[in-house]
Amino acid sequence: MDRDIKRLAILGSTGSIGRQTLDVVRSFPRRFDVIGLGGGSNAALLAQQAEEFKPKFISTADGGGLPGAAAEPLSPSDMASHPDVDLAIIATSGKAGLEPTLAAIEAHKQIALATKEALVMAGGIIMARAASHGVTIMPIDSEPSAVWQCLRGEEQPVARIILTASGGPFRHLTPDKLKAVTPQQALEHPTWNMGPKITIDSATLMNKGFEAIEMSWLFGVPLEDIQIVIHPQSIVHSMVEFADGSVKAQMSIPDMRFPIQYTLFYPERVPNNLLPRIDFLNIADASATSALTFEAPDADRFPCLRLALEAGRRGGTCPAVLSAADEVAVALFLDGRIGFADIPRLVAQALEQHHSIDNPSLDDIIAADEWARGKVHA
Amino acid sequence: MDRDIKRLAILGSTGSIGRQTLDVVRSFPRRFDVIGLGGGSNAALLAQQAEEFKPKFISTADGGGLPGAAAEPLSPSDMASHPDVDLAIIATSGKAGLEPTLAAIEAHKQIALATKEALVMAGGIIMARAASHGVTIMPIDSEPSAVWQCLRGEEQPVARIILTASGGPFRHLTPDKLKAVTPQQALEHPTWNMGPKITIDSATLMNKGFEAIEMSWLFGVPLEDIQIVIHPQSIVHSMVEFADGSVKAQMSIPDMRFPIQYTLFYPERVPNNLLPRIDFLNIADASATSALTFEAPDADRFPCLRLALEAGRRGGTCPAVLSAADEVAVALFLDGRIGFADIPRLVAQALEQHHSIDNPSLDDIIAADEWARGKVHA
Repeated sequence: MDRDIKRLAILGSTGSIGRQTLDVVRSFPRRFDVIGLGGGSNAALLAQQAEEFKPKFISTADGGGLPGAAAEPLSPSDMASHPDVDLAIIATSGKAGLEPTLAAIEAHKQIALATKEALVMAGGIIMARAASHGVTIMPIDSEPSAVWQCLRGEEQPVARIILTASGGPFRHLTPDKLKAVTPQQALEHPTWNMGPKITIDSATLMNKGFEAIEMSWLFGVPLEDIQIVIHPQSIVHSMVEFADGSVKAQMSIPDMRFPIQYTLFYPERVPNNLLPRIDFLNIADASATSALTFEAPDADRFPCLRLALEAGRRGGTCPAVLSAADEVAVALFLDGRIGFADIPRLVAQALEQHHSIDNPSLDDIIAADEWARGKVHA
Repeated sequence: MDRDIKRLAILGSTGSIGRQTLDVVRSFPRRFDVIGLGGGSNAALLAQQAEEFKPKFISTADGGGLPGAAAEPLSPSDMASHPDVDLAIIATSGKAGLEPTLAAIEAHKQIALATKEALVMAGGIIMARAASHGVTIMPIDSEPSAVWQCLRGEEQPVARIILTASGGPFRHLTPDKLKAVTPQQALEHPTWNMGPKITIDSATLMNKGFEAIEMSWLFGVPLEDIQIVIHPQSIVHSMVEFADGSVKAQMSIPDMRFPIQYTLFYPERVPNNLLPRIDFLNIADASATSALTFEAPDADRFPCLRLALEAGRRGGTCPAVLSAADEVAVALFLDGRIGFADIPRLVAQALEQHHSIDNPSLDDIIAADEWARGKVHA
């Protein structure tokens, strides 16, 4: 096998990040070999991907193989840590990304992590194990990728991270109108094309709170040095202020293939003419001027942001409860069983009732996660 | 002497960059030792600086010493290349920066260059000699410093530089009103506090053309891959687009002490609480929104920009003629002897009459410079 070919295991290949990762792989067939694919409920798409990419390993929702496919069935963790894999891409939604991430760390794999919930739940454990194994966790999501890119070649500590948020589709709605929001409305994100869970989390701003916690772990920056600003154009993906007051920003058209490609090729930057360039003279905006705009988030109308930052500051098992309660509440909302404003209400309730454990073990975190899931009902 | 102390020779210490460099030095008295100071016509300020910093060497307009001061008189070139100097800061205005830059290269000094005219005139010769001597030319000006900072840690070639321009004080004036502009009006720059020559060059946009040529040499990027955009807030100092379409921007409040400090300490970034931080929620703008805006420059109203880019593309001795003709025309304008619109007219005239020499020697460049100075009259 050619040394220049990177062998990929993609967990969550049928999700939004997984599909876009395969898009990038299609553009560079000589650089990547898809060794493993792991999907969830969308068995038909997984079968179609397996047909196209002919992986050696497959991970299905029921743990079995695919009818008619030669791929050997493996658990997500066994696939992420398999000796034949160079880079494990963890792009499953929610809690499911945690175990394979830890397995890939133990196996000293390169890791590209899209599942921010893994770091929200167990950032302390993941980062400590990654450090002791000499493994770098490469973020796939556009905001932490922006910070990672801004830190490239910089040796000194960060003074401030400016984490940008599109503000989601409802940033101008009144509290009353917010209550009446439907799943269909919430799934129409103004700038990013993403999966349903993260799209709802973007609409509640919970996603931005998760990202602040994720970045805090990834870059060793205290939450109070992470400033969240609404930037509706989603061109600036985040910024870093250094000790000397100089700020670097990373930008692109909002398209997940940019950060995915950066991570797949890191440290190389490779031309990809399929990806559109920014036209600084024509950045879409309400005004006639081509502008990048910034405003403060409204924590009153979007209480999920405040809940997330509080849980992050309290630490212990609180972020695990936050993430689990949110995962259940978002699923209930998507099922039409609760309203939009019930998401923060149910998450707040779970956090209030929770007795946090400091410096939690992995078992403590999993127990807190399960406890929280049991607490959230329609 | 402490190894951590950098010994500085500052040419142009009485100019705007020189004075602000000494401001930064004052903030870090244990990190820098001012070994040499060189000034021009402002002998009183030079004497005052010599009194405060007690340099070993002085370079005066007439080549003599300072009354009552112990400093040994040296020529600018001898000072920039003196064995006691670690870092030569070339911040003289116009043509005067060329010779000391070449002398500092021959002496293998660290060089911080603010005088863009040296690169405009003789970029090919400076960069070739710097490369053969293993010397890096560190830019001081905010725009090339921004590109240099964006390139930090990046190994691949640049796809595009987005060079920002404040647009100067007259970006909204009609051609008729532009003709009537007085030196006093032109010296009031909306965002940057700079010396008179560069302030007028900013008002005509000649300065932006110079910067494009300067960047082209410094970073090996063809002029056609440098896009100039008007950005009135002067927060984004320039941007780099990489091969993969990702863009990095470097930003700060418009204050020359940022890039000066970056260069003095490079590669270190040092906290300086005297320098203000960007408040992304309150970027001054005509609209109510906190915004970074971008628009196209108007080459019809600001013909100096077109003249500069044409001279840069033609190459040879044309940029030297451009720079020399502009230097004389700006001096005539500041003296009240010609109008604002006469600056591009006189520069264009000199360029039209010039017979350019390809791959010019230093003598060819100096001859072209002198020829052009003789051509420009009120």
